[in-house]
Amino acid sequence: MLNLTAIRTCLDGHVLFATLDCPPLNLIGPELGGDLVTLIQHLQAHKNEIRVVVFESGVPDFFSAHFDMRQTAKFDAELTRLAEGATIASLYDRISTLDQVTIAMIAGRIGGAGSEFALACDMRFASLERARFTQMEAGAGLIPGGGAAQRLPAAMGRARALEVMLSADTYPADIAERYGWINRALPDVELRQFVERLAQRIAGFPSSGIADIKRRVDELTRTPFEAVEEDLRLFELAVKLPGTQARLNMLYDRGMQTDGTVERDFGEALSRLGADA
Amino acid sequence: MLNLTAIRTCLDGHVLFATLDCPPLNLIGPELGGDLVTLIQHLQAHKNEIRVVVFESGVPDFFSAHFDMRQTAKFDAELTRLAEGATIASLYDRISTLDQVTIAMIAGRIGGAGSEFALACDMRFASLERARFTQMEAGAGLIPGGGAAQRLPAAMGRARALEVMLSADTYPADIAERYGWINRALPDVELRQFVERLAQRIAGFPSSGIADIKRRVDELTRTPFEAVEEDLRLFELAVKLPGTQARLNMLYDRGMQTDGTVERDFGEALSRLGADA
Amino acid sequence: MLNLTAIRTCLDGHVLFATLDCPPLNLIGPELGGDLVTLIQHLQAHKNEIRVVVFESGVPDFFSAHFDMRQTAKFDAELTRLAEGATIASLYDRISTLDQVTIAMIAGRIGGAGSEFALACDMRFASLERARFTQMEAGAGLIPGGGAAQRLPAAMGRARALEVMLSADTYPADIAERYGWINRALPDVELRQFVERLAQRIAGFPSSGIADIKRRVDELTRTPFEAVEEDLRLFELAVKLPGTQARLNMLYDRGMQTDGTVERDFGEALSRLGADA
Repeated sequence: MLNLTAIRTCLDGHVLFATLDCPPLNLIGPELGGDLVTLIQHLQAHKNEIRVVVFESGVPDFFSAHFDMRQTAKFDAELTRLAEGATIASLYDRISTLDQVTIAMIAGRIGGAGSEFALACDMRFASLERARFTQMEAGAGLIPGGGAAQRLPAAMGRARALEVMLSADTYPADIAERYGWINRALPDVELRQFVERLAQRIAGFPSSGIADIKRRVDELTRTPFEAVEEDLRLFELAVKLPGTQARLNMLYDRGMQTDGTVERDFGEALSRLGADA
Repeated sequence: MLNLTAIRTCLDGHVLFATLDCPPLNLIGPELGGDLVTLIQHLQAHKNEIRVVVFESGVPDFFSAHFDMRQTAKFDAELTRLAEGATIASLYDRISTLDQVTIAMIAGRIGGAGSEFALACDMRFASLERARFTQMEAGAGLIPGGGAAQRLPAAMGRARALEVMLSADTYPADIAERYGWINRALPDVELRQFVERLAQRIAGFPSSGIADIKRRVDELTRTPFEAVEEDLRLFELAVKLPGTQARLNMLYDRGMQTDGTVERDFGEALSRLGADA
Repeated sequence: MLNLTAIRTCLDGHVLFATLDCPPLNLIGPELGGDLVTLIQHLQAHKNEIRVVVFESGVPDFFSAHFDMRQTAKFDAELTRLAEGATIASLYDRISTLDQVTIAMIAGRIGGAGSEFALACDMRFASLERARFTQMEAGAGLIPGGGAAQRLPAAMGRARALEVMLSADTYPADIAERYGWINRALPDVELRQFVERLAQRIAGFPSSGIADIKRRVDELTRTPFEAVEEDLRLFELAVKLPGTQARLNMLYDRGMQTDGTVERDFGEALSRLGADA
């Protein structure tokens, strides 16, 4: 019924565990993008059976490294199943407005469009020891194009959002918590049990209250779809600049998208780039 | 002059200490509601004498457990002295826009409409050891109808507000501080002295600056009255659903509103309800 | 080329270090105000050479104590070089919307209009041991007139902003961090290296992404210039009140603006004033 290739799912009561499994980096590309479209449609058709979705990663070290910069066209093609002309902005807006409660459980590196995916979820919990956060677009001359420029200021205020996006640096989970990037950082041994208990708890409550709360909080806090589309337009303009292309090529040469060592500390990779350039 | 039955007051200089004293749970019902109307009118008539109001509890273990679900009609009747058709939304809006600076000093359990009362105050300080916070409406299939769905997202952001309201769970004071539910959690032995010093300090300053600051911050951050009224309308619709009534009856049977043990950890009571249902 | 008297500058790569050096208190007055106008014009003319500005203090113990209440006319005269009728609201708005990324590195006392200057910067980092924060205007019967009444609620929420402004008290750096007044408090021995590394890192990234990010975050979070002008109007009305004048004169008599001991803990000075008045 649920025909997915890069996401494994497991239904436990009314909680669906969706495990992103697109090794080695869980890049947001055609595989995960296509599966997310399928999953969204499945969730819309099964509101009563599935009340809460927990997104986690099946790939060691990474929740999701970032966007797959080399497969933009294929990614966009997958999204047409969502709607004609759908973009990552529409994809994440759909996730953000699902009837289901969505929880990201982050126990590895997360960056770029992967971070923006988590920001589109209702809640985020992370492993104190293993989660690392990077909104790295500025390091390549780009603005985040999938919602971070809207959702990070809302989550952590102007000053910290500017710091996080302009530094393009890697942040440990405890600072991510202090800044409001995530709800809470938990010791790795407690994370799964905490999230499972929370998910089952919410799934056990009557749907009337959950729907009312989600809708009313959305009316107050929902990130306007059009604003993310405008960020994306700026991203797409800047990506074509010769300077951006040169910088991206240097990053590809050093192992971006292919070498786990580089991706494991993208913030540091950007530092070395500056020093060598 | 101040004819109250469930609130004791004590004026120390220009600071009024208002002690909620409606045992065993300080439920927000006709007694406290009626007294709050009287107190608001007294405060409006004594702007010069009373500059700061500290709300605290005289009931062991509880600041205020939640709304008195069994006395809605009587509660509404008391509020008509505020204005024809006044609701808990109008009551809390009046508190939020008093000329006086309002401080909630929380040294016990606080939940539901009790939490919403504290959220309508200007500041909240809590005992690290004794305060416990629960916005429990979702556990009965309801949206908070007294402002939490508006004021919690403003205070702690979308993700944490959704967590707190959808989990309907009990939060200790240190997490309440990290989330922004309260200004600060203080060791129990320091709480009273801290709040008294702060209250007297503010009361000693010229009223001109205080009035300007309160008014300007209100213009930027005031929760629209109409938004809380709409939450309340949704609450009142959902409370009539058979599922909600069944769930509330189960909670009454287990001791809601009567048994301090149940009320002492409402989050846990909701867990057990789910497990048994 | 850069003809300044109260600010020393030092260009290191694309990072300009601007050291406020107007002893003994770095009051926001004609000297610093005039130099800030000159510096803003210089920065606008050198967008490519200067990408990041780090503001720090060359005065022991103080980043900037507050506004120079005795030189208002001279201060306003300096600002006319910015624009006819320019105020501290326009000055700080210009700083807030510079193309350059601005970072305040705070290793001493900061208060009043000095705090508002830091709030107009993009980011704020402070010494855990040496930084102290006071928004003290309420203690003299005044609303902050340079942006704090707008930018503090945005940075720390309604309740904490009211506390900080109404208490007019002195806050250590760790609470300033917990409240969101600053990005982060760092041990004094790490502060400079941290800020320098961050500044050079951002300055090494392509300008396209930085400009897009700053502009888009501004569209979402920029404090309306008109709102600060209205605060300033209220400040100027209240400053003329006999009560305010009496209180300011008491503060002058006790050493405000002249005695470092009084200025070192302005919060405490206001306490003693109340006790004696």
